Amino acid sequence: MITVAVIGAGRMGKVHGGNAARNPNVKLKYIVDPVAAAAQTLAKQLGAEVTSMETALADKEVQAVIITSPTPTHFDFITQAAKAGKAVFTEKPVDLNLERVNAALKVVADAKVPFMVGFQRRWDPTFRAMKKQVEAGAIGTVEMVRVTSRDPYPPPPSYVQGSGGLFRDMMIHDFDIARWFLGEDPNEVFATGSVLVDPEIGKLKDYDSAVCVLKTPSGKLAYIENSRRAAYGYDQRLEVFGSKGCLQAANASPANYSHWNENGIVHTKPHAFFPERYVEAYAIEIAHFIDSLVAGKAPEVGGEAGRGSLALADAATKSAETRQLVKL
Amino acid sequence: MITVAVIGAGRMGKVHGGNAARNPNVKLKYIVDPVAAAAQTLAKQLGAEVTSMETALADKEVQAVIITSPTPTHFDFITQAAKAGKAVFTEKPVDLNLERVNAALKVVADAKVPFMVGFQRRWDPTFRAMKKQVEAGAIGTVEMVRVTSRDPYPPPPSYVQGSGGLFRDMMIHDFDIARWFLGEDPNEVFATGSVLVDPEIGKLKDYDSAVCVLKTPSGKLAYIENSRRAAYGYDQRLEVFGSKGCLQAANASPANYSHWNENGIVHTKPHAFFPERYVEAYAIEIAHFIDSLVAGKAPEVGGEAGRGSLALADAATKSAETRQLVKL
Amino acid sequence: MITVAVIGAGRMGKVHGGNAARNPNVKLKYIVDPVAAAAQTLAKQLGAEVTSMETALADKEVQAVIITSPTPTHFDFITQAAKAGKAVFTEKPVDLNLERVNAALKVVADAKVPFMVGFQRRWDPTFRAMKKQVEAGAIGTVEMVRVTSRDPYPPPPSYVQGSGGLFRDMMIHDFDIARWFLGEDPNEVFATGSVLVDPEIGKLKDYDSAVCVLKTPSGKLAYIENSRRAAYGYDQRLEVFGSKGCLQAANASPANYSHWNENGIVHTKPHAFFPERYVEAYAIEIAHFIDSLVAGKAPEVGGEAGRGSLALADAATKSAETRQLVKL
Amino acid sequence: MITVAVIGAGRMGKVHGGNAARNPNVKLKYIVDPVAAAAQTLAKQLGAEVTSMETALADKEVQAVIITSPTPTHFDFITQAAKAGKAVFTEKPVDLNLERVNAALKVVADAKVPFMVGFQRRWDPTFRAMKKQVEAGAIGTVEMVRVTSRDPYPPPPSYVQGSGGLFRDMMIHDFDIARWFLGEDPNEVFATGSVLVDPEIGKLKDYDSAVCVLKTPSGKLAYIENSRRAAYGYDQRLEVFGSKGCLQAANASPANYSHWNENGIVHTKPHAFFPERYVEAYAIEIAHFIDSLVAGKAPEVGGEAGRGSLALADAATKSAETRQLVKL
Repeated sequence: MITVAVIGAGRMGKVHGGNAARNPNVKLKYIVDPVAAAAQTLAKQLGAEVTSMETALADKEVQAVIITSPTPTHFDFITQAAKAGKAVFTEKPVDLNLERVNAALKVVADAKVPFMVGFQRRWDPTFRAMKKQVEAGAIGTVEMVRVTSRDPYPPPPSYVQGSGGLFRDMMIHDFDIARWFLGEDPNEVFATGSVLVDPEIGKLKDYDSAVCVLKTPSGKLAYIENSRRAAYGYDQRLEVFGSKGCLQAANASPANYSHWNENGIVHTKPHAFFPERYVEAYAIEIAHFIDSLVAGKAPEVGGEAGRGSLALADAATKSAETRQLVKL
Repeated sequence: MITVAVIGAGRMGKVHGGNAARNPNVKLKYIVDPVAAAAQTLAKQLGAEVTSMETALADKEVQAVIITSPTPTHFDFITQAAKAGKAVFTEKPVDLNLERVNAALKVVADAKVPFMVGFQRRWDPTFRAMKKQVEAGAIGTVEMVRVTSRDPYPPPPSYVQGSGGLFRDMMIHDFDIARWFLGEDPNEVFATGSVLVDPEIGKLKDYDSAVCVLKTPSGKLAYIENSRRAAYGYDQRLEVFGSKGCLQAANASPANYSHWNENGIVHTKPHAFFPERYVEAYAIEIAHFIDSLVAGKAPEVGGEAGRGSLALADAATKSAETRQLVKL
Repeated sequence: MITVAVIGAGRMGKVHGGNAARNPNVKLKYIVDPVAAAAQTLAKQLGAEVTSMETALADKEVQAVIITSPTPTHFDFITQAAKAGKAVFTEKPVDLNLERVNAALKVVADAKVPFMVGFQRRWDPTFRAMKKQVEAGAIGTVEMVRVTSRDPYPPPPSYVQGSGGLFRDMMIHDFDIARWFLGEDPNEVFATGSVLVDPEIGKLKDYDSAVCVLKTPSGKLAYIENSRRAAYGYDQRLEVFGSKGCLQAANASPANYSHWNENGIVHTKPHAFFPERYVEAYAIEIAHFIDSLVAGKAPEVGGEAGRGSLALADAATKSAETRQLVKL
Repeated sequence: MITVAVIGAGRMGKVHGGNAARNPNVKLKYIVDPVAAAAQTLAKQLGAEVTSMETALADKEVQAVIITSPTPTHFDFITQAAKAGKAVFTEKPVDLNLERVNAALKVVADAKVPFMVGFQRRWDPTFRAMKKQVEAGAIGTVEMVRVTSRDPYPPPPSYVQGSGGLFRDMMIHDFDIARWFLGEDPNEVFATGSVLVDPEIGKLKDYDSAVCVLKTPSGKLAYIENSRRAAYGYDQRLEVFGSKGCLQAANASPANYSHWNENGIVHTKPHAFFPERYVEAYAIEIAHFIDSLVAGKAPEVGGEAGRGSLALADAATKSAETRQLVKL
């Protein structure tokens, strides 16, 4: 049984807190959030207490924290929790600044606490089954990876402003998936972005549509496409090509039927957005974190996943700005 | 909050008990099973007490029972619980004998307790979404219904012996679905069965492969196919044809990807069997039972569903034996 | 090089005549049709001469006739051509009366001329590839066959009147396919029909919707569904279940893309009707007839295909009328 | 009726010659090929005469030439035929050198003869139906285009040597499709290539795997992926994303069924390679050329298609070599 404090009572706090509370190996003790009403509502719902970060970290019973607070707070909370000897799960990104990411990872390493970053797609049953197939040699040597991510609609400009830009906010998930399937870190990055969806995003010097091409030292290629708009729902697809074949993940739908009518053979739409699409992945992710702590093993998807994907996002941002290939 | 006793600690006891225990509106108080070890294991796992049927029914706090014990015990447990004023959820079938079903339903009606039968497919998100489409007129007037059920492998002869035969044990689920989508009770039944999978099943005078055709007074047609074998996994499909189009449910898979290789475009197999295929349906089913009790409304899928599907199963059994159309 | 006369300049005359004219092994010499204008138009288009049946049969150069005239004329034209020593290809059905079919087949047998019946679905590349898979043991022993045929819209009552009824006119193609895949002649037939599409069809004592179940001596089962209406286009599907798996033919579309939009993932509709759906099958069918003559081999799909499918259609008609199982 | 000479009796000569010979509006008069045996075989098969280029061009009856000879001969044959006043259809590419392409187009323009380039994918029924949907506004404004081309196996090094490289030989078709669907000429090109399939290709300074990203002045993006290997067959897919949805072309298969077995749901493989995949496109392409001549209209897919796609191929080649974005 692992005693846990959840930091942040917003959208991801509810998701991770709920999964922790339902996990038979978790005692969810605390909810921490400066917004008292949010903290209390969630704590009541999950049978936990509201407290402060200081109290939570001072409590010897607390073995792990799950950080779901806003990105700018991640660095402080990660380092404080690590120094207090707590195992740390943090929502992505570790930070928007690569130097601060490296600094945080150093604190974590020095503290020798378990550390895990919330790239939930790694825990999606479909993507994970594909990864196992790749490892089993089902497609021979991996040659190309295609990652498609389209959000159903753009975020509000207020969100865009503090997001670090499309490559660090949205495509970072795709960089993580690409790295995972390439099995090798890219050393060449080319990216190009456009404003095709919302001119407000352009005014903030960000893009709403982008394509990125990655190349590894051995010549493997990955290409990622992002858009902040998809009329047909949340688009999350993956194709991995190898010397002996390819693996393709289709979109998933909440209902799995088709309506054959005068317009055509109409299959149901994909899930609306990420909370629906990755509901299983989020539960499995937290279960893995807890199971790792119970077993005394380092969790998968640790600091290097956070660092490596941000390095690619930084390179892509620079490439799009300079219209140059960026070498790593 | 509804206080519940689960009767039966076998496979379905675990499924329904687990869903009840996870339901925020349920206090799972008792597990009842003559096999003490099974009862204790499940009770411990779900945080409940082991007790006898008598004690459970005598406990004023208990508001509802969930019956998952073997079929021959259903009648007694349903009627005892109803007379004790408890709301009753029972796994299908109510009984294998139509007269006893009618008798049980009379006791339930006289006791005026909520009553629900476990036809879990009605709660599958895909089938339910299709039903809503039909009700919304998406395919006009329903004309034909096709229900496909194939088990991955045959049950052991020991199971077959007490099962009531293929039509009452397996096809009864399909009759329930057909009735639901036809929206009208069939009055003509033709069925034919074969022994193509396991000769032992034939020795027990049962079939392992069967087709049944239903016709309603207004001329709607349904056809159902059953097999006790499917090399590719659990096959659960549905097609509903209407004047303006049709709705089709495909099989669902645990992972949703395809492997393109020298053999073809290989999609992942369907779920292995019913516990995997209907995991969501089972949870939604128990949630509906509890929500109905909380709201003071009669649950859907009550006694008439149990009676109507058994009447069709009886007619199909007779038709297959006599090689005659049976009229109802 | 085979010299051919085409009998009938209507819809099927154009289809078969065109395929014959384009066949490099055919000299298309004559078009025969009592409607002079139709005969002349087609003859001009295909570079043939218009003549009478008598002249065509008297011409020693003519080696084969392709009969596409109305069904009531088939018997006379088949027997006349056979007696004149010509190879005969006839559109289905040989005749609507089983005794006359037997009589025609006897004339053909006595004359020892090649004889082929136009069940074009046998030549569809998809169905044929599936048959080869079955023969290669890909699904083990065949256990069940499902054949689905839905026309996009009902025929006019004038057509229905002389058609022999749904089972002899429409389902006869499905009986042929079922026989082909069962590999064994059914000896039990149950059929039921309804009038759900067009009341005029009911006034003519015919059905527009029907289901038929076939059983063979070894217990194999086939079930066929027909409707004279499908809002989504021409529905031609086939499922063959065996001990080791199943084969399924999907519908084919003239264009193979999907439109992902706010309504769903919309695949293109199936072909509009049989001339579009079976365009390849018709060409391969005539090529097979000609190739057989060139090679001096009996063509596939001979008289027994015509007789066997009509016998099932007769039995189904009787079953639907009497509401009894019919044994053969 | 258009009198035609086919130049070249190799693979594409057979394809285009056959389609011309079967076209009811064509009199196929000549086959021209320095390899006498090839010319004679094809001429005999198609009912044409063998002659020399000079004779064919001097023959007043000849109205059009179809050039299928090796790429290095295209320039001379196009310009000679144009100067002789013949309509010209040429296989792609016009030439591998952009200046020579421009020179050829000038000769053609001065001669005012109809001119068409063989980008057969434009005539594929699926791609053309998608283009019509785009033009009809089905997906709103086009934002991104994805073109996937994978050959089943690499060409022999001897072919690679004279091919102009992957971008000019293979991806040129994809550039043509991208230009068609973007509706706007890209002015930024980034490409990167690898040698992952056959080291011999690398020794020739070519690539066997490549990704290219295009951007138009208005910010539309296209990305193209090429590989000289695909274990699952010829991979030809297209996705066009717009503000209101997307259109996706799947691969086409010679047989359209699936085999459900213990390995999964196995759909049939795509076509083996381009002659099978584009059989309809080739026939429609030649028919369009002939119909344009009959109607006195300029054929679609003229010189600009040849020039524009080569310009992109040149830019992609340069980008891959220099590892720089290339601006046009």
